[in-house]
Amino acid sequence: MRRILWLNPIAHSDHDPIMKKMFQREALPDTEVMVKSLTNGPWHLGYHYYGTLVLPESIAIFLNAEREGYDAAVMGCFYDPGLREIREVLTTMPIVFPEETCTHLAATMGEKFSILVAEKKCIPAMSENLDRYGLSKKLASFVSLDMNVLEFQKDPAVTQSRMMAAGKKALDDGAEVLIFGCTMEYGFAPKMQDTLGVPVIDATITSFKYAEFKADLRQRYGWSHSKRCAYESPKNEEITAWGLDKNAFDTQII
Amino acid sequence: MRRILWLNPIAHSDHDPIMKKMFQREALPDTEVMVKSLTNGPWHLGYHYYGTLVLPESIAIFLNAEREGYDAAVMGCFYDPGLREIREVLTTMPIVFPEETCTHLAATMGEKFSILVAEKKCIPAMSENLDRYGLSKKLASFVSLDMNVLEFQKDPAVTQSRMMAAGKKALDDGAEVLIFGCTMEYGFAPKMQDTLGVPVIDATITSFKYAEFKADLRQRYGWSHSKRCAYESPKNEEITAWGLDKNAFDTQII
Amino acid sequence: MRRILWLNPIAHSDHDPIMKKMFQREALPDTEVMVKSLTNGPWHLGYHYYGTLVLPESIAIFLNAEREGYDAAVMGCFYDPGLREIREVLTTMPIVFPEETCTHLAATMGEKFSILVAEKKCIPAMSENLDRYGLSKKLASFVSLDMNVLEFQKDPAVTQSRMMAAGKKALDDGAEVLIFGCTMEYGFAPKMQDTLGVPVIDATITSFKYAEFKADLRQRYGWSHSKRCAYESPKNEEITAWGLDKNAFDTQII
Amino acid sequence: MRRILWLNPIAHSDHDPIMKKMFQREALPDTEVMVKSLTNGPWHLGYHYYGTLVLPESIAIFLNAEREGYDAAVMGCFYDPGLREIREVLTTMPIVFPEETCTHLAATMGEKFSILVAEKKCIPAMSENLDRYGLSKKLASFVSLDMNVLEFQKDPAVTQSRMMAAGKKALDDGAEVLIFGCTMEYGFAPKMQDTLGVPVIDATITSFKYAEFKADLRQRYGWSHSKRCAYESPKNEEITAWGLDKNAFDTQII
Amino acid sequence: MRRILWLNPIAHSDHDPIMKKMFQREALPDTEVMVKSLTNGPWHLGYHYYGTLVLPESIAIFLNAEREGYDAAVMGCFYDPGLREIREVLTTMPIVFPEETCTHLAATMGEKFSILVAEKKCIPAMSENLDRYGLSKKLASFVSLDMNVLEFQKDPAVTQSRMMAAGKKALDDGAEVLIFGCTMEYGFAPKMQDTLGVPVIDATITSFKYAEFKADLRQRYGWSHSKRCAYESPKNEEITAWGLDKNAFDTQII
Amino acid sequence: MRRILWLNPIAHSDHDPIMKKMFQREALPDTEVMVKSLTNGPWHLGYHYYGTLVLPESIAIFLNAEREGYDAAVMGCFYDPGLREIREVLTTMPIVFPEETCTHLAATMGEKFSILVAEKKCIPAMSENLDRYGLSKKLASFVSLDMNVLEFQKDPAVTQSRMMAAGKKALDDGAEVLIFGCTMEYGFAPKMQDTLGVPVIDATITSFKYAEFKADLRQRYGWSHSKRCAYESPKNEEITAWGLDKNAFDTQII
Repeated sequence: MRRILWLNPIAHSDHDPIMKKMFQREALPDTEVMVKSLTNGPWHLGYHYYGTLVLPESIAIFLNAEREGYDAAVMGCFYDPGLREIREVLTTMPIVFPEETCTHLAATMGEKFSILVAEKKCIPAMSENLDRYGLSKKLASFVSLDMNVLEFQKDPAVTQSRMMAAGKKALDDGAEVLIFGCTMEYGFAPKMQDTLGVPVIDATITSFKYAEFKADLRQRYGWSHSKRCAYESPKNEEITAWGLDKNAFDTQII
Repeated sequence: MRRILWLNPIAHSDHDPIMKKMFQREALPDTEVMVKSLTNGPWHLGYHYYGTLVLPESIAIFLNAEREGYDAAVMGCFYDPGLREIREVLTTMPIVFPEETCTHLAATMGEKFSILVAEKKCIPAMSENLDRYGLSKKLASFVSLDMNVLEFQKDPAVTQSRMMAAGKKALDDGAEVLIFGCTMEYGFAPKMQDTLGVPVIDATITSFKYAEFKADLRQRYGWSHSKRCAYESPKNEEITAWGLDKNAFDTQII
Repeated sequence: MRRILWLNPIAHSDHDPIMKKMFQREALPDTEVMVKSLTNGPWHLGYHYYGTLVLPESIAIFLNAEREGYDAAVMGCFYDPGLREIREVLTTMPIVFPEETCTHLAATMGEKFSILVAEKKCIPAMSENLDRYGLSKKLASFVSLDMNVLEFQKDPAVTQSRMMAAGKKALDDGAEVLIFGCTMEYGFAPKMQDTLGVPVIDATITSFKYAEFKADLRQRYGWSHSKRCAYESPKNEEITAWGLDKNAFDTQII
Repeated sequence: MRRILWLNPIAHSDHDPIMKKMFQREALPDTEVMVKSLTNGPWHLGYHYYGTLVLPESIAIFLNAEREGYDAAVMGCFYDPGLREIREVLTTMPIVFPEETCTHLAATMGEKFSILVAEKKCIPAMSENLDRYGLSKKLASFVSLDMNVLEFQKDPAVTQSRMMAAGKKALDDGAEVLIFGCTMEYGFAPKMQDTLGVPVIDATITSFKYAEFKADLRQRYGWSHSKRCAYESPKNEEITAWGLDKNAFDTQII
Repeated sequence: MRRILWLNPIAHSDHDPIMKKMFQREALPDTEVMVKSLTNGPWHLGYHYYGTLVLPESIAIFLNAEREGYDAAVMGCFYDPGLREIREVLTTMPIVFPEETCTHLAATMGEKFSILVAEKKCIPAMSENLDRYGLSKKLASFVSLDMNVLEFQKDPAVTQSRMMAAGKKALDDGAEVLIFGCTMEYGFAPKMQDTLGVPVIDATITSFKYAEFKADLRQRYGWSHSKRCAYESPKNEEITAWGLDKNAFDTQII
Repeated sequence: MRRILWLNPIAHSDHDPIMKKMFQREALPDTEVMVKSLTNGPWHLGYHYYGTLVLPESIAIFLNAEREGYDAAVMGCFYDPGLREIREVLTTMPIVFPEETCTHLAATMGEKFSILVAEKKCIPAMSENLDRYGLSKKLASFVSLDMNVLEFQKDPAVTQSRMMAAGKKALDDGAEVLIFGCTMEYGFAPKMQDTLGVPVIDATITSFKYAEFKADLRQRYGWSHSKRCAYESPKNEEITAWGLDKNAFDTQII
């Protein structure tokens, strides 16, 4: 049995039940799914400032999940916010990030991939992430849908048609694999894959499935991430001495 | 249910039953394992020339496995021989390569990894693979065990002690994660991980587990690898016209 | 006249008066200096998690400073925390980051520089910053002083001697310019420069002087940073609708 | 005197006499030319799988050529198949590859070059080769002629006009030098060079001339390629023990 | 007080008085400005050969300026000619180069910048400089104005309109900051910045202001550039023995 | 028949007759050799400033050689001074540079090469050249002989022994091919190659042989370097109008 936490690091829970149902449908038989969102903060992470505001509560949630024995968790935003910080704080629970997951996977499925993002504004930071991961030369293009994150699930027909157009442009750019560059783009992949004839990677489902895989590796081989050097954890004495723990350990997940 | 083929692309089958047992122990409940080796050719792939000699038969085996409905397969050599060629020929079955798999995974587990290879001779081609994959800057070092591939399983105590020394050197080089750079180094990871306190990635087990994961993605989402452009398959008419098919389709897998 | 804010993004103010005096001594005649620290949080930013905890209050302080007409500000930590987030939120006030400033400057002063950091733990993230800035190939080495940030100013003689040893090692590594990789290493540069005969860049003073320069460019040419695309600001309506502003605008600077 | 072997690694010999005549016309006075093709296998190498099928026989031919005292040889395909494998096996005879040769040469003749390839399918692997050789930043563009390799010499007027159009596009892409990205594009360079006013590098003739140059360096200074590490040869004992030699040494060159 | 020398490394002085007035208008209160040009040589540096012809006299002028106590100088050409050579010869006076200065500055002001150059011919060498400085990935595009350097100041209305069109193209290319890629493009920035709403960096004024900043750092901290290794100066004995000094020290600056 | 000019860009001719004899010994039967040095300037180019002083006269000599019908020329210094400038001015005569030539050649002979340079001072600029050429990742190491250029031929036994030690160090660094990083290191290669068992590339002889090869390509296919964009020549009208031609065309070659 494995328990997976998906966190939508935003202050509304509209998508939580839909996502939970979706993950349950895609899960291995012995996987238990929890989907959670935040109590305070922004409704989307289109701006990096918003990402900053959600990190403290998100980290507290992941810390609690680790203590409660979750086997893996996903930070549900394609900007991969807090990748370094969350791995630093967690010690035994693998934590999955969508851009990292989808781009490493796509690199094994084709020579070039394109990422379909919500707005042009997303590109610089996501492009910097690709540099970090070493995968920039696998990029055919970023294609912007010019849609606000909150719009994706409002009128699915409109979104589907915008995504199809973006996907076609990506193929012209030389993409052999397509990646959805936002966790709110869920649900549009199958039709696109059928029509365009190339693998289309839904960042939401894929991150969830990779979390299951990571949970399995964790249970069998004890792997989360190395605690040597880069992800070495802060010391408890300091955290206590400075009164940081209240901050960090308050949030409850049931 | 999923069926996974592991190919040892060498002309002796000494390791096949041991590996099969090992994979069965590590498999998900509904995974069926086949381990196979070749009928002709070299006994190890320490030289690239040997890699060339084994590719035609290996490709024929993978083609047959695809036809017989295998859900994923592994090309069991850390040089990742035939990565481009095999993906070109296969259309629906995902094919897993050890260096590609282990280094992409390690990149999500630490800032820097080291690869423990059999001999210095391995380094240039494996290093070139890292460049291809985009992961060169994640490399702390290659450490050579200065052992012949055929020796690894002969005297496990000797091998374990050599590997421990190499692992310690790798930590001094700045590694946060260790990778075994040969599929014949199987079995030595757990003790090393316990002693050194960093994740130690066994290339054999890890590639097998990743093949299971890929098989799952294949069954659910239809993903193997893109057939657009880079991995576009040769045309059957040509293959028939030139009498290549006998070559390619002869080999049987039970 | 120009007003410069230096923020020590830590929850104690022990260094504030010393730094203020130091900056006043180094300032242009018509520069007014403010040094501030935080009310809550960690005492140093040796861990990225700590960096996350201090960002919300730090951003609020910079926002207020901008509103009050400061001409430039410095985020006083060599990890350059919040570089993207702070530039996103600020619209007219230039914001200076120590690693960015010192490495771009050093690149005009020699072929290779070394960075003297507190602990090995600092290296992965600072090295990633260098990649972002494009300056990795100018790096001769990181040299770790193996000292806790809080120790630097405790026994100056000990620190000076450690730094001298580290500086000599850096020269052997091929450095032509030395950079102090922590804003708490202030005060040790002049003696080191005299002894070693190469430019030694104090990250604290240098960042302050660069803030003065940026303030001047701001006043004359209206330059802070581009608000197009990467640093486009979040929208006020969202901030108000989601109740984020209380968070952001509470902190007062006198 | 020097003897040069050109191998067309395909299973038909239609181009051999024409090429032989062409090379004889271009040769230094004391050069003797042999052009050979294979007995079995595909008629072109447009797919990497085909490249795999031809390597064993090709290697055997090169080994025999070395034994018979040839001074240099060319592997006549712009994919540079078997670069690492063939250099590994050969010990004293220099072996020339078209993409390696033409791109290194073009890098000394202009800031940017374009490569005119048969089909889009060629681009990923040829682009990966450029990365290996370090020359990617010299690339202005790949331009696809959208022609099958077997068509180039069928209707020269059609081919010439396609190539001229592709060459013009390449100039618009910023190319200062043009390279033919297939050894079957021979014969079209002079007219194109006259018309476009930039150097046009015929991959066939150029590789042959470079082989002559390498033969000369071999005779005077003993240089083929280093046998240390990367191109270290497999051991004869292994080859004999495993019965590989029959495979390798059968083929006769007259 | 600080004295700054601006050298127009061309053999006519038409722009000297205008530039001097401009710099005086932009200078800090206690800055003294000298603008100089050459006695012999080309009228512009559009060709690298011209750059070679002007270096000996330019170096002599900078050497004299250093001896006469100038606090900083600018080599007034965006090709940054003689960067290595001039830093090698000067020992205490900082020397500023426009492309180096503007691109490092722009890198702190946005994610991507474009450079507006006189002619396409400028691009290869300026692009190579960016590679040297490590800033190539910050480049959105070079946009050519297709104007001769000598034309820029002839009909300002024409130039302004060409530059505006080029600036708009640069924004489409993804630029967040614009840089003028020629010191003769002075004067056109303010209107462009107002219209396009992004920072527009005039290479002339910016280099002058950076020279002031460098002069200040020089006076306070003794920094010009490291004399260790890369910029180590030639030895006086050799210069005297070979009669080179006449060459170098003849030129007078009043 | 082909005529090759070797220029020693230094103001003494001590090595000219020895080199001429050496080149004649190594030349193809129908090659005519001219070795020339300068009338004024430094005796070695260990400093970049010296490189600047010799360029105008060197360029004039190459221009005259082109006019007199030389088929190729070598700029005899491993810093490759004036690569861009000389190619810009010459229109039909190929010009060969030692570092460019030797490193591109070595890249076809092994995975990694080391360069044996006179002094540490040489490394930054030669390393920057490797970056330009794209070959940095082929570098195992620079090894400094810590000898002045003028000493190499004084006591050959001393030099040979220093070089042997440096060569051994290079092998430990992973080099598979060795390159002499100065044209004054001629004559020491054969013994070193015999002893160390790897190809040792003498920069002097190799550049000469490559010039012969380039001359041949020039005669047969009209190739020198592209005159489009990067190496476009300055216009005669400007040169005449500004009185530059006297400068450029005075020098005579017999």
